[in-house]
This record gives sequence, C-alpha cells and structure tokens, in this order.
Amino acid sequence: MLHNTYDGQTCSVARALEIIGERWTILILRDAFLGVRRFDDFQRSLGVARNVLNTRLQRLVEAGLLERSRYQERPERYEYRLTEMGIDLWPTIVSLMQWGDRHLGSDDGPPLLLRHNGCGGEVTSRRTCAACGAELTPRDVRPAPGPGADEAIRARLTAA
Amino acid sequence: MLHNTYDGQTCSVARALEIIGERWTILILRDAFLGVRRFDDFQRSLGVARNVLNTRLQRLVEAGLLERSRYQERPERYEYRLTEMGIDLWPTIVSLMQWGDRHLGSDDGPPLLLRHNGCGGEVTSRRTCAACGAELTPRDVRPAPGPGADEAIRARLTAA
Repeated sequence: MLHNTYDGQTCSVARALEIIGERWTILILRDAFLGVRRFDDFQRSLGVARNVLNTRLQRLVEAGLLERSRYQERPERYEYRLTEMGIDLWPTIVSLMQWGDRHLGSDDGPPLLLRHNGCGGEVTSRRTCAACGAELTPRDVRPAPGPGADEAIRARLTAA
Repeated sequence: MLHNTYDGQTCSVARALEIIGERWTILILRDAFLGVRRFDDFQRSLGVARNVLNTRLQRLVEAGLLERSRYQERPERYEYRLTEMGIDLWPTIVSLMQWGDRHLGSDDGPPLLLRHNGCGGEVTSRRTCAACGAELTPRDVRPAPGPGADEAIRARLTAA
C-alpha cells in the first residue's frame, strides 16, 4: 500500500507531493520534458521495473499531468505527453536541477545544460536567459550535454 | 531499508531527489522556511511519528541542509536551522506551492500567501514582487494566511 497522503496538511506543497512525491515520478516528468514519450524509452532511460513504471504513468495520467494517446493500432501502442498541468511543473524541475548542479554536482560540472533557443544563453534561477534576459518557458529552451555528461545522458538526448 | 538512490542516473534532479525525495522531507523544509526550529514544533505541525521525524532531521543535518544547535543545557535541547544549502531550496518549494495553488487548490483559494516585506506584494512565479518588481529571496518575504487557510495553518504561522 502506498502512503502518499499527508492527512491534516492544508497546504499546496503537501497536495503537490501527494501526486508527484512518489519515487520515480519526478524523473518520469524530467524525461518527458526532455522529449521522451514512449513506455520503452522511459523504461530504458530510467531502468525502473516495468510494473512500477506502468503504475506511475497511470497515476500521472489520472492526475492530469500526462495524456496518453495511441500512436499504433496493431499492436496497440500509446505515448505519453505532458499536459498543461504537467508543463507547469517545469519551474519546479528546473529549480531542483539547478540546486543539484550547485550543491551535489561533480567536479566536472553540470551533466545537462538548458540553453535558450534564441541566443544559446543559459537559464538563470529565475528562468530568464542569462545572455539576452528573455523570460523563458519550456518551449524556449533546448537541453544539451553539459561538461559532466556521461554516455547515458548523451544517448538520452540523442534518442528523444 | 530505504531505496533512495537512483543508480545509473547521472542527473542533478536525481541527485537532489536522493536527499529530499523521502516522504516528509520537503514538508520539514517547508516548516523550516516558515520559522519552525524545534523538534516538538515540527512534530506538532506535521503529525509525523517521532522516530520518522528524528531520522529525517538527522539525514538533513548529515546532508548539510539543516544545522543542529543546542539551545538548552539541562536537559539538552537542540534546534534545527536551514543552512545556505537548505535555503537554496526555496525556489523549489515556492514553485511546488504555486503549482499546488494553481492546480490542486480548493475553491477558497491558496492556504498560504507569501508577501514582500517591503510593499506587501505577492511573489510571482519568477520570485519577483508582483507589486514593485523586486527580485525576492526568502528573507524578503513573510508568510500570511491565504483565503483557503484553516486553523492549523493559522496556528502554525502564529507559533513560528
């Protein structure tokens, strides 16, 4: 049984964690922002058990963060895309990444960089472009391997 | 046993979750930002089992997000304060709260508001002041009960 409620907490942070606080869920969303859409690609990227992945994806669909759409008929295959509600988690995921880069990074530097499509500038902590100052949305940036990238990241970015 | 590692994920988001992805941890940090410092106050606010709370606080101290300092000698009593590393999680927690307010809120409105000390303006999604445009840090804002606040929130804000 999953204990994913925080009873007695009238709090938007607690409510948010009831949906996205489960193990793997944030990493599924991270991959979705990097362009992953298909079950097998999530599975390969995360290395998570298929039943766990299936449960998490279903939960994200039910909660309204992902939508599932059929891309093949025989056999039936589905892909998962971020909804607006899911896309609205971008600031949270970017800030988590930046915190990890800053405090938990390796000496090599960040594994992943987010760059403004327009001018190539990096994304600041307030999600503006460090070069031109534009206010950025997920659609305005592209991920690129950073100095600390390993083969897995390069493969993920190439595949997505 | 806690399964709190994400093997094979060279990723700052995954590294961040290895520290703050455990149940209750984000809510402990949320309370710390609201001014809670003492074990019993965390326990009262969260309603979590004391052994769980103790484990989480220890882990946050070991990871460098909280520091523990003695405030009483006999019996020995300690309080927990955010370090700079902990304070740097403010953008993540604010964005989670804002996402919850937007997508999971009740009809009453947000339970909690963050207001700029200077002019009382609300905090935008880029952590600027909606009224005067100042770039805000945790030290520049104060929490206030929102239209969706319940008694527990009012008590927490008064106590802290």
